Formats: sequence, structure tokens, C-alpha cells
Amino acid sequence: MTLLIKSTLSHKENDKPIGIFDSGVGGLTVAKQVFRLLPHEKVIYFGDTGRYPYGPRSQQIVAKFSFQNTNFLLKEKVKFIVVACNTASAVALPQLQKHYQIPMIGVIDPGAKAAIGTTKNRRVGVIGTVGTISSDAYRKAIQKLSSGIKVFSLPCPLFVSLAEEGYIDKKATRLIAEDYLSPLIKKDVDTLVLGCTHYPLLKKVLSQVMGEDVRLIDSAEETAKEVRIFLEVNKLLRESKGKAYHKFYVSDVPDKFMQVGRRFLKNRIGKVRRIDINRY
Amino acid sequence: MTLLIKSTLSHKENDKPIGIFDSGVGGLTVAKQVFRLLPHEKVIYFGDTGRYPYGPRSQQIVAKFSFQNTNFLLKEKVKFIVVACNTASAVALPQLQKHYQIPMIGVIDPGAKAAIGTTKNRRVGVIGTVGTISSDAYRKAIQKLSSGIKVFSLPCPLFVSLAEEGYIDKKATRLIAEDYLSPLIKKDVDTLVLGCTHYPLLKKVLSQVMGEDVRLIDSAEETAKEVRIFLEVNKLLRESKGKAYHKFYVSDVPDKFMQVGRRFLKNRIGKVRRIDINRY
Repeated sequence: MTLLIKSTLSHKENDKPIGIFDSGVGGLTVAKQVFRLLPHEKVIYFGDTGRYPYGPRSQQIVAKFSFQNTNFLLKEKVKFIVVACNTASAVALPQLQKHYQIPMIGVIDPGAKAAIGTTKNRRVGVIGTVGTISSDAYRKAIQKLSSGIKVFSLPCPLFVSLAEEGYIDKKATRLIAEDYLSPLIKKDVDTLVLGCTHYPLLKKVLSQVMGEDVRLIDSAEETAKEVRIFLEVNKLLRESKGKAYHKFYVSDVPDKFMQVGRRFLKNRIGKVRRIDINRY
Repeated sequence: MTLLIKSTLSHKENDKPIGIFDSGVGGLTVAKQVFRLLPHEKVIYFGDTGRYPYGPRSQQIVAKFSFQNTNFLLKEKVKFIVVACNTASAVALPQLQKHYQIPMIGVIDPGAKAAIGTTKNRRVGVIGTVGTISSDAYRKAIQKLSSGIKVFSLPCPLFVSLAEEGYIDKKATRLIAEDYLSPLIKKDVDTLVLGCTHYPLLKKVLSQVMGEDVRLIDSAEETAKEVRIFLEVNKLLRESKGKAYHKFYVSDVPDKFMQVGRRFLKNRIGKVRRIDINRY
């Protein structure tokens, strides 16, 4: 018993898993990129399916949920936390970073950087949930790095349900996209940040509606790149090149997460466990 | 102090408020009918806006939330509880009724009765959330009372977001309704139960898609009638004919509830207070 504890204690910091949390399945787009870019890293993913969506909720409650999610991941002894939810990144990440020692990143800064690197006419559109857009987090992040860029933001709340219900290639989705996006088209943006992890599922229709000259920015890949850079610079990459586990936890029963999750990961999800997140 | 306690204790049972809970704003369609049919009754409404929607969640978690909501209303000393959410009525009401002494009704039985009283060709359609439809509660309730009626049920998950986002009169909503409802049209139903408190907001388009011969059943009014009958039979109607309060509680900040609630009540909502529902 003593030996076992000793061996647990002597585990190196870099052998610990990366923690990722999201309001539900959407963050799997980020997880997918992390799996791809960091195939030897252990990952613990928590999807708050018992309380999703975060998009329409208040800042206070999203912050409260985010603290609980972080506490859960810390108890699982992660070395680094990715807030894979745009709404939580936008309204809660600064508070989380102030409160916890562990390094954390969200999806806003990577998306903002990518937009800055992409726009030529310096006019950027941002779409997201009501929570993300009203926080103004993308505009602030973009203009902090490059103050001359004009940012036009719009909430598109129906996109989340359309993506989850598989309404990807339907005429109704196109009509709703035309409704939502026409103010951005008028503003002549050449870059559009998909500020919600669900939106990349609607990429095709969004691209058709915006026109082929408008570049779409998907924060997921940018975020995974930042994770790799951070771990590398801080010598936190896992040394073992063996197969690493991916563990999934949710706050409602796992069935729907597994089913919708396949649409996001494009393959099966292994075992998914339910936890009582209100204990954290 | 002693006098005050004595006076509180001597309050008659029938002077107590009616408690209503729902996953969010949808139950206001029921509250509205209760206000109309029972203008002298005090009402306490709880909308679980911090954890809505219930429709896509599992039976276990909807039951857990419903027990907490009931505990809150009991602490507010209500005399009767209306479960104004179709999903909670479908998956949790039998458990609640087993567990608590207080009389409770849901929206399923009143809707089922109305459907039986309306159908001529004995073919009834039921639409609702995934939770309500997979519980099969409407079919069971209808066939328990009238076994010869054929019931065809369909989940229509996107209708909730469309109603909440004010997508009432749009072509996209019509296209989605046509997609969803075509199997029911083929089944030649002459009565359609709107098995979700949000759906009455889409009545116009639903009626256009189903055709004018199909009668739409809105459980809200039927439920309010049952509440009145129950209170009358059990001598629980409030005796005072003075103005009665309507108190509103929610589990997220009140802003969005007040704003969307106006669409449901067609007038302003007074003070709305936030509570921490996880304490109950």
C-alpha cells in the first residue's frame, strides 16, 4: 500500500492528463484537434450535459458552473485545463485564471489571433451565442492585439439547436443563416469567426451564405495548436510515446452525448461516465 | 412575536398559494390560464431557468430537478402543485405523487382528456420534446381512458428554440414544421396534442401545415380547468375575493425570463426573484 502511494506521488507532472471542459458535446471539436495534434497525451473531457446550454444563461451562472467543472478536473489531477466552450471562455475564464494556480486557456484568444492573421480588409465578423456576444470578449481580444481592426458581432442562438438536431444541409437552416448573417454581409467583413464550438458543423451553409471570399475561422484547431505550444515551452509534454487514454465524463446519462458526439468526433466515443457535478 | 407566529399558524389551508413549476418560461402559458380562471388565487411560479431545457435530458435528471422544484414550493407553503412542464409531467409526476402528500397535477392527463373529447376519427397525433415523447406518457394516458384510439407520437425538438427566439411567422419555421409533421399528416390524424408548453406560440404555422380540419389541443387551458375543479371539490378555493399576489422565482438571473415571459403572458411580469435551486 505504501509502495503504491509512493509510486502515485512520484508520477511526473508531465505524465498527468490534459483536462478539457465544455457545456456539452460542442467542445469535442476542440478535443478532436487535441487528439490529432497531441496523440500521446492523456485527456479527460467533461461535458456538462446536465446543465447545457451555457449560451443563453447569465454570466453569474456560467461562472458558477465553470468553477465546478474546474474543481472536478483538478480532482482528476490534470496538468492543464482547456475551456473548450466559447461562452465559458468569454464570461468566466478571467475569473478562473485569477482563482486557480493551474494553467488554463480558452478558445477566444486563439480564435482572435487567427482572425487577425487572416483579415486583409481589417473587417472581422464574429458570431456566437448570446452569452459570448454580449460579453464582447472577441472584440476586446482582437482589438487588444490590433486596435485598428473593425469587429462586428452578432448572436445566432438557433445555430446550436440546428447543429445538434442534424439540420445541416436543410433549406430552413439556409434561410435562418441568411436572416442572421445579412447584417455582417452588409458590413463587408472578409473574415468570420465561428465563436461557438457547434458552428463548424454548419460551415458549408455559412460559407455559401457569406460568399466564397469570406474566410471562416474555427477556433478549435487554433486552440489545440496553442495547447501544444504551451506544453512544449513549459516542458509539460508527456514523455511516453505509448497509447494514451481519453476519458469522458458527463453530468447527465451518457446516451445522447455518445450519439451526438459521434457527429462531432466522426467516430465512436469509448466509455462515458456520469458524475454529479453539483458535488464539486 | 408570539402573536405573529400564532396568526401565521392560524392561516387557513385555502388561503395558501397555488404552486406552479416549469423548466423555464413555457409554463407561463399554464400560469396565464390559472390567473384567468382563478383570479383570486395566490400563485407562486418557479421557472428553472438555470437548468432548462428539460426536453432533451434523461428521465433521472428531470426527476431529480422536479423533486428539488417541489421541495422549494413546499417550503413556500403552497396548497397544491401544478407541474406545468410536459417533460416533467411525463417522466417525473408519478414518482412525485408517490413521494409527497400534497395534491399535484401535471399537464398530460388534461391534454389527453381533451384529445379524447375532440377526435372523431379516433386518430390522435402528439408532438413534444424528446423526453415527453420517449416516455410515451400521452399515448398511455389516452389509451387508459379510451383504448380504441390510435395515437401517433413525434418529437419536434427544434420548436422550443424557434418559439423562444420569436421565429413564429418565418418561412424557415414553416419548412421545419412541414418536415416534422409530414408523418402525422400521412397518418390522417384529426386531432393534434401540443405536448409542450412552447408549442402554442407556433399554433398558426402548425395549423397551416396540418390543415384546417385538424384540431390542435393546448393543454394549458385544460390544466387550469382541472385545477379549478380540484380546488372547488376539495373546498380549497381561497375565500377572500381581494387581489391575490403572483410571485415569480427563477434559478438564473431574471432578465431573460422577464423578457421572454412577456411573449407568453402578453403583459409585464412583476418582480422576479432568483433562488439557488440546488439547496432544495
